[in-house]
Amino acid sequence: MLAKVRIIGSGLIGTSIGLGLVQQGIAVEMVDSDPSAQALAKDLIGGVAVIDPEIVIFALPTSRLSQVIQDEIALNPQSTFMDVGSVKNEVVLYIQTFPGLSARFLPTHPMAGREIGGASSARADLFQGRSWILTPEADCVPESKKLVLELIECLGATPIELSALDHDAAVAKISHLPQIAASLVAKQLTGTPLEWMELAGQGLRDTTRIAGSDEQLWKEIIYSNRSEISVLLTSLQNDLAQMIQALDDPAEIASLIAAGRAGKAMIPGKHGGIAREYAYLPIVIDDKPGQLGAIFNECAAMQVNVEDLNIEHSPGQLSALITLSLSSQDAEKLSAHLTSIGWNVHPVRK
Amino acid sequence: MLAKVRIIGSGLIGTSIGLGLVQQGIAVEMVDSDPSAQALAKDLIGGVAVIDPEIVIFALPTSRLSQVIQDEIALNPQSTFMDVGSVKNEVVLYIQTFPGLSARFLPTHPMAGREIGGASSARADLFQGRSWILTPEADCVPESKKLVLELIECLGATPIELSALDHDAAVAKISHLPQIAASLVAKQLTGTPLEWMELAGQGLRDTTRIAGSDEQLWKEIIYSNRSEISVLLTSLQNDLAQMIQALDDPAEIASLIAAGRAGKAMIPGKHGGIAREYAYLPIVIDDKPGQLGAIFNECAAMQVNVEDLNIEHSPGQLSALITLSLSSQDAEKLSAHLTSIGWNVHPVRK
Repeated sequence: MLAKVRIIGSGLIGTSIGLGLVQQGIAVEMVDSDPSAQALAKDLIGGVAVIDPEIVIFALPTSRLSQVIQDEIALNPQSTFMDVGSVKNEVVLYIQTFPGLSARFLPTHPMAGREIGGASSARADLFQGRSWILTPEADCVPESKKLVLELIECLGATPIELSALDHDAAVAKISHLPQIAASLVAKQLTGTPLEWMELAGQGLRDTTRIAGSDEQLWKEIIYSNRSEISVLLTSLQNDLAQMIQALDDPAEIASLIAAGRAGKAMIPGKHGGIAREYAYLPIVIDDKPGQLGAIFNECAAMQVNVEDLNIEHSPGQLSALITLSLSSQDAEKLSAHLTSIGWNVHPVRK
Repeated sequence: MLAKVRIIGSGLIGTSIGLGLVQQGIAVEMVDSDPSAQALAKDLIGGVAVIDPEIVIFALPTSRLSQVIQDEIALNPQSTFMDVGSVKNEVVLYIQTFPGLSARFLPTHPMAGREIGGASSARADLFQGRSWILTPEADCVPESKKLVLELIECLGATPIELSALDHDAAVAKISHLPQIAASLVAKQLTGTPLEWMELAGQGLRDTTRIAGSDEQLWKEIIYSNRSEISVLLTSLQNDLAQMIQALDDPAEIASLIAAGRAGKAMIPGKHGGIAREYAYLPIVIDDKPGQLGAIFNECAAMQVNVEDLNIEHSPGQLSALITLSLSSQDAEKLSAHLTSIGWNVHPVRK
């Protein structure tokens, strides 16, 4: 039974874990080498001093693990240890340098985060419904794993077990590669005349959205996973060279664009695990307060669940185009209903 | 005064123009070399036979312009001509091969489209509030330009004049480069184990969204603008090589990610012309009908205008996280109000 947890590091992840555990009645001690950060976290969490915690969580950059781990081993000889870093194999290799430690140290990675860090951004529900990856070594004892699983489930997350190498290869592909690509595409915009930028559409916005991320966080992630990332960037580089070669050959261009479409089809739908195809219902509304509320009231009246919504404002116009993502059935039902009561509804797109 | 228009090509753009013009009481004749396509367009538009049209619109791939232009010149010696292709300099060069034609042929590019083509996807309001670029040559006669401007405004679009070379450089950067990058990033996903793909988040989804585009359309666009695109792809290739070199150097990684953030900041806000920074208000709601309507009713009551909305469903959970994009002032106002009446509101992000 999990009753006492010690958390080293009071950033976004550490403090969010602390908040979530305290809500479940678990005693939490927050520790931070920065006294003011520790004070803030304690204020937020109301943490206490904890002796013999079942779990010690290292919620700090992996590069700073070495500053604290020996003291923690000496202080907590019976505790289970876990970390929460974004890259796992470097942690596995590091803990192997301490004899026997991998039996009670679980490398983990909660797939949750926010664009902004720090204790002040922490939320008790940060991990609700998210995946939380564990990469235990073969000699990990069942008691330690059981405690970590209890903690993950206590925070509302879904535990997923992977090898450390698989984890690092997976996040390189689904997270680190898109980050680097978005940043490098956005970098090409530097110096573009403003009147050209006015022509930018949703495609450019989506492709570069995550280019707004914090470079201090990302330099550490990318550096830590550089061997996996290097393979992917080299593959991207080869495909880019192939596209440059192909520019004189429409058939070859088409084949590369088609390969991209096939790759995109690998991404599952939003409801993790179930790939869903939405139907899209475009509605032109007056761009003023009250319109969206009225539409959502009709959705509720028709028992229609809106999966997502895009709002597109037309420059210089008083109207906006909203596009609702719905199940096909809901889209047809809502389209007929809204049309019948006078909304400016356009044909459903599949 | 615009009264009679002849449209060559009954795809998405040609048919949408036809629909929009007929709604304004203008006589439209649709012509297509494919008899069944022509029949469908005529059914949709109810077009008529038109003699001596003021404007003849070439709404077909630029590569097929040569199949029809000589007949149209012979048939319509007084008409103004315009095309609607995505790349302009090749059109300018082509019409220069016909002596005097550039006086009455306006290359144009409506910045509107849809992921799906064909007459059946056409909409009379496709161009409402969109930009429509004109790239007239120096010898273009005022009467022709006036007619084309009348047509553009009649369809609700905003005319923007650029040189053909500037147009092609601008769309290469804001449209063609992101398309190619999204496709090539998505291509890297091929063969990824499905359990890794389950970990995909919003970053990957956004970065690769437009990779779903049609390769038949894009092969023509990319090929036509290959000289501009080649410059940009080479620059991207250099930056990618620099990132691969930088993988051992966190400071250099940070500098490339920061350069991307600076580039992204060049993209103006959604309300064309005014770069706006939104504040983001996260709210956790029950994932059931009625919740969004209730929130938007509160927005309307508080006179708060929602600029955009993101809905994130947690797999296996009954709650959803919605994030409203608002002005800073509206975000603070709405946050205080919703909190006071019991909604689960999280701190505003800037």
